[in-house]
Amino acid sequence: MIVLFTDFGLAGPYTGQMKAVLASHAPAVPVIDLFADAPAFQPCLSAYLLAAYCGAVPQGGVLLGVVDPGVGTDRLPLVVRAGGRWYVGPDNGLFELVMRRAGAVGANVAAWTIDWRPDRLSASFHGRDLFAPVAARLALGEPPPGTPVPVESVRRPDWPDDLARIVYVDVYGNALTGLRAAMLGDGVELEAGGRRVKRARTFGDVPVGEAIWYENGNGLAEIAVNQGRADGVLGLKVGDEVGVSGAAM
Amino acid sequence: MIVLFTDFGLAGPYTGQMKAVLASHAPAVPVIDLFADAPAFQPCLSAYLLAAYCGAVPQGGVLLGVVDPGVGTDRLPLVVRAGGRWYVGPDNGLFELVMRRAGAVGANVAAWTIDWRPDRLSASFHGRDLFAPVAARLALGEPPPGTPVPVESVRRPDWPDDLARIVYVDVYGNALTGLRAAMLGDGVELEAGGRRVKRARTFGDVPVGEAIWYENGNGLAEIAVNQGRADGVLGLKVGDEVGVSGAAM
Amino acid sequence: MIVLFTDFGLAGPYTGQMKAVLASHAPAVPVIDLFADAPAFQPCLSAYLLAAYCGAVPQGGVLLGVVDPGVGTDRLPLVVRAGGRWYVGPDNGLFELVMRRAGAVGANVAAWTIDWRPDRLSASFHGRDLFAPVAARLALGEPPPGTPVPVESVRRPDWPDDLARIVYVDVYGNALTGLRAAMLGDGVELEAGGRRVKRARTFGDVPVGEAIWYENGNGLAEIAVNQGRADGVLGLKVGDEVGVSGAAM
Repeated sequence: MIVLFTDFGLAGPYTGQMKAVLASHAPAVPVIDLFADAPAFQPCLSAYLLAAYCGAVPQGGVLLGVVDPGVGTDRLPLVVRAGGRWYVGPDNGLFELVMRRAGAVGANVAAWTIDWRPDRLSASFHGRDLFAPVAARLALGEPPPGTPVPVESVRRPDWPDDLARIVYVDVYGNALTGLRAAMLGDGVELEAGGRRVKRARTFGDVPVGEAIWYENGNGLAEIAVNQGRADGVLGLKVGDEVGVSGAAM
Repeated sequence: MIVLFTDFGLAGPYTGQMKAVLASHAPAVPVIDLFADAPAFQPCLSAYLLAAYCGAVPQGGVLLGVVDPGVGTDRLPLVVRAGGRWYVGPDNGLFELVMRRAGAVGANVAAWTIDWRPDRLSASFHGRDLFAPVAARLALGEPPPGTPVPVESVRRPDWPDDLARIVYVDVYGNALTGLRAAMLGDGVELEAGGRRVKRARTFGDVPVGEAIWYENGNGLAEIAVNQGRADGVLGLKVGDEVGVSGAAM
Repeated sequence: MIVLFTDFGLAGPYTGQMKAVLASHAPAVPVIDLFADAPAFQPCLSAYLLAAYCGAVPQGGVLLGVVDPGVGTDRLPLVVRAGGRWYVGPDNGLFELVMRRAGAVGANVAAWTIDWRPDRLSASFHGRDLFAPVAARLALGEPPPGTPVPVESVRRPDWPDDLARIVYVDVYGNALTGLRAAMLGDGVELEAGGRRVKRARTFGDVPVGEAIWYENGNGLAEIAVNQGRADGVLGLKVGDEVGVSGAAM
């Protein structure tokens, strides 16, 4: 399985062109759109989102991750192996949290730069020209077409373990933070959009129109308004800082 | 074939996570996105839309329908068999109209509650954790993992046969009603956004910019403006009531 | 492979209903969404976009192209063979530029009207009822179900070779023109939104917030703002005219 995590959108040509390349290299491999609207041009915000949702990739599967403001510059193309999964994309921190958390549970982490180059490499679309062919090869069981590098050389040690910012606003207007709920006590309140928000178990625990935060289906602290849009009601958008109070994190 | 009918959106993680589950349980079964933007949190509006479009599901196929404001509460998870197709989703009326119309043409209708539970059931995402695995099993020919219940116990007999409201606004701004055109005479006018709109056969029958209603490709009465957006011109949105005049319904 | 080029959107039912038809006729053929947001109701703008991106279709593959304001009128349904690929859709100029450019490199170009009709042909949705079944047949190696016609009879000779208009605004706000960059000198400046924009190689060549134009990954001249949205900054939208100055085109 190849799972896509990008800021490319679905309706336009970028995801489709990548899929056409994947289908010609690995026609029998299922391709799944996980995120096509990751925080645009923001690898750091994206990294916390990616780490929470990489469980959609089965063991041995490939996550093709492209949030790549540095395309066309000299940032390196990268393959990472972490927690039994492959990751393919730019060396800009996008895979920092999956490496860190895989390491924390004792799994092997390894990294390669991609040395292979296609016959034609456009300046602006490495997702299609470089990363997609490499992802297809890995999905077919081939080794990374590049050179092993020390994992330390591609890490971002200064980034925090959890990120107290909004990393995604979903289709319902719910605001996902980069904070894992398991790291927060039940008494913790989040501050967002100038308001304090208490923890609840699910939407149904509070009246219609009230804001809560809860552990979402992927373990992140998520701010929602029951049958309303938290982004509108609280004025939240991707990148906003979130306050944490009431208990140690 | 598994056909998806949800209010999850496509770009974000919900549809993708469901598809990753489907692909791991039933890798050879095609999965089709029918609606990812059904009326959010509104099972009743969604039910009339679903019934008009369920023909996309072949005989023996599965419609996985998740418009589920009650997720995390005690509403039941349901499997329905109607008109030769399987339906999987919450017991909130979403499948009322497919049951009613299948019954009307003499096909068998049956229902089961889902007793099976996954190892981990999140409070907020039964689509991925509960409904998707069940849909995959049904698509593979397995029986419903639950208990037969009387069909009457999951019906909504008080809902009308046709719904005089806007149930969907499409990409062109056309407004689909919950009214089947075959139940309306040629002389019927619809009132929407403060205007009376006459019936026509197709866009091309009226001048550019004029509003009409017509039978759309799935049998619903649809309000459109030739080469314009009916939602903008008439001020229409999902949930708005529609008047019916000029002939008996 | 069947590649979709439409103005249908992805979230709603039109693309999904087409895919359900394709999956029932040709279940083993991969289907790729290339554009679901081509310029709505505008075959001419769409034609220049399509011609730049048809390379996603492999040799022998099928592009199913539906931008069809004339659906329900007497415009002809068409199959075109150009550059080793099949094209299926309405006879409204959508395939003019692929025919013209395939001819320019010496490949064979041929055209057929579609005589086959389905048992039920809706007035408003030929994409699902007529074009999709034909695309599936062609993908399975069957001949066009229709009558050869002189290519000249379906051409649009009065259209220019390159179109000095915005033909697409992408997910990042970049504005794609209908101009091939290879036809423009390095010194050419484009005028859009009242500003003159110089050529650069990639985003990274200019400071954050500055506008450039460059050759995009498919050969079109594309106007962008480094880490900003050109549509917002320059006030650009699909259909806008673009000035070309500073060198012969």
